[in-house]
Amino acid sequence: MVFVGVDVGGSKILVGVVDAEGRVQDLVRRITPGRATAASMVEAEIVAAVDELRDRHDVAGVGVGAAGFVGLGGIVRFAPHLPWRDEPLAEKLGVRLGLPVVVDNDANVAALAELRHGAARGVEEVLVLTLGTGIGGAVVMGGVVRRGTQGLAGEFGHLQVVPGGRPCPCGHRGCWEQYASGTALVRAAGAADGPTRVAGPDITRAARQGERWALDAFADVGGWLGVGLAGLVASMDPALVVVGGGLSDAGDLLLGPARSTLGANLPGAERRMLPPVVVAACGPAATVIGAATMARETDGGSPPRIVSPA
Amino acid sequence: MVFVGVDVGGSKILVGVVDAEGRVQDLVRRITPGRATAASMVEAEIVAAVDELRDRHDVAGVGVGAAGFVGLGGIVRFAPHLPWRDEPLAEKLGVRLGLPVVVDNDANVAALAELRHGAARGVEEVLVLTLGTGIGGAVVMGGVVRRGTQGLAGEFGHLQVVPGGRPCPCGHRGCWEQYASGTALVRAAGAADGPTRVAGPDITRAARQGERWALDAFADVGGWLGVGLAGLVASMDPALVVVGGGLSDAGDLLLGPARSTLGANLPGAERRMLPPVVVAACGPAATVIGAATMARETDGGSPPRIVSPA
Repeated sequence: MVFVGVDVGGSKILVGVVDAEGRVQDLVRRITPGRATAASMVEAEIVAAVDELRDRHDVAGVGVGAAGFVGLGGIVRFAPHLPWRDEPLAEKLGVRLGLPVVVDNDANVAALAELRHGAARGVEEVLVLTLGTGIGGAVVMGGVVRRGTQGLAGEFGHLQVVPGGRPCPCGHRGCWEQYASGTALVRAAGAADGPTRVAGPDITRAARQGERWALDAFADVGGWLGVGLAGLVASMDPALVVVGGGLSDAGDLLLGPARSTLGANLPGAERRMLPPVVVAACGPAATVIGAATMARETDGGSPPRIVSPA
Repeated sequence: MVFVGVDVGGSKILVGVVDAEGRVQDLVRRITPGRATAASMVEAEIVAAVDELRDRHDVAGVGVGAAGFVGLGGIVRFAPHLPWRDEPLAEKLGVRLGLPVVVDNDANVAALAELRHGAARGVEEVLVLTLGTGIGGAVVMGGVVRRGTQGLAGEFGHLQVVPGGRPCPCGHRGCWEQYASGTALVRAAGAADGPTRVAGPDITRAARQGERWALDAFADVGGWLGVGLAGLVASMDPALVVVGGGLSDAGDLLLGPARSTLGANLPGAERRMLPPVVVAACGPAATVIGAATMARETDGGSPPRIVSPA
């Protein structure tokens, strides 16, 4: 009996069999149907991928990490890059698969992966950030990924770091993810006299080769990462900050400036220990690993979000 | 057998016997020795007050809420208005009293009072703010007051709400408590053409009588309260926000504007429920009640901060 983890992003769906040690044993990749399609189209892709894995494995349950606001009971309230609006995803997939299905936000399940199998093993109080196009986040307190009352804890991307600052598609201004994300890095590279159309990995490569514009871009984005972290660390006092997502591949190019501004902006920094800020360990499969881990632990009876099909 | 709660503030020390229902049965008040005195002077005042109560009651244990950074093990790291620096308060009081003593931050114990006996009874996810000269705060998740890894969770007063904003004695600029506290209210009243030397209760009285300058001052301070709350609510997704401390006596004069800016600044506000923002129920004795409650619960074996004297 194995558990399957599903990572539903805006462009691709990853579905994998994950063992008890958090290793991906078998992985299937599908293209995410665009957000103009029906909600059921995305579900059909997930079901097809899980069925493919079931041909080869005896699957006991499925966990899903979805990029969006996921409410209690596995209902996807809203997903900016997906057609789901108040979609009872856990229930629908459960019925179609005839398997127990649990659903959470992708950042929350990535945090669970780090907690059980990655950089946060054995740590009780952790902040986990996932930096990609935007910022995903999760709050671990007392060794548990905290969902808050509506499943929305850890939604850090739109924290206001600059009142009246850069406009954000969310309708507000000065949101953290406009300053500390992959999108912000590309913008910063352009502002620092680098190429205006460049991808994150190219900027990382250029920075590793010592190119000034690229180092400046990381100093800018990493600096804002630390500024936002200062508020979160002051509020929640974690023992550790774990940074994952594509942008974290840059490692200390990003985290060096972040540690520095975290120290400079944290209230009472001289009277407390600063939490280490480290790169996530589970890599690009973190959401798949965490989603399967969530399914496994739910099966054991801990969290309450299991949906048994009729 | 009863439990005693101690509230150690910058100007006064309140020591009370609190029953299992959270009612203060007997209360002693002392003046806090100034911060230029020895740490042991403050402890001597606490011991004398507890001894006075022990003449009349069979005291089983003591809880202390102190205005400052309280680390694990009841060590007061730093208290701006008290002479304690890395003071092992729980241990010292325990030895002098021959009783089990537990110590926590005053805002954390006030939150425990609200959780067990006040406005947050039965609620699992709560943010509690204590607004006085500055801002104290506490994070309740899963029905537990979360201390973080160093006992510093809920330290919201110096969250940066305005980069480069008003200077704060902490050395940073734009700290939340420079905009949303009793101090900020007095400043706002002056800026709104009110009297420049006026106390908080006078401003509340003037606002209740409809005086424009006083209403403007509350609109300003309450507005900033909501702006800061938006970030905390986005991060932690509480079911409820409880506001206590002296400033909360103003009720909706303060909380009305706060609710309004919370709604306007909260990311995704249109897709989630806003947590109610309500006034604390335990009043000025909240810290005494919470500290005694903490001692009672520690005696029962739940939290780990008990210090048994040799």
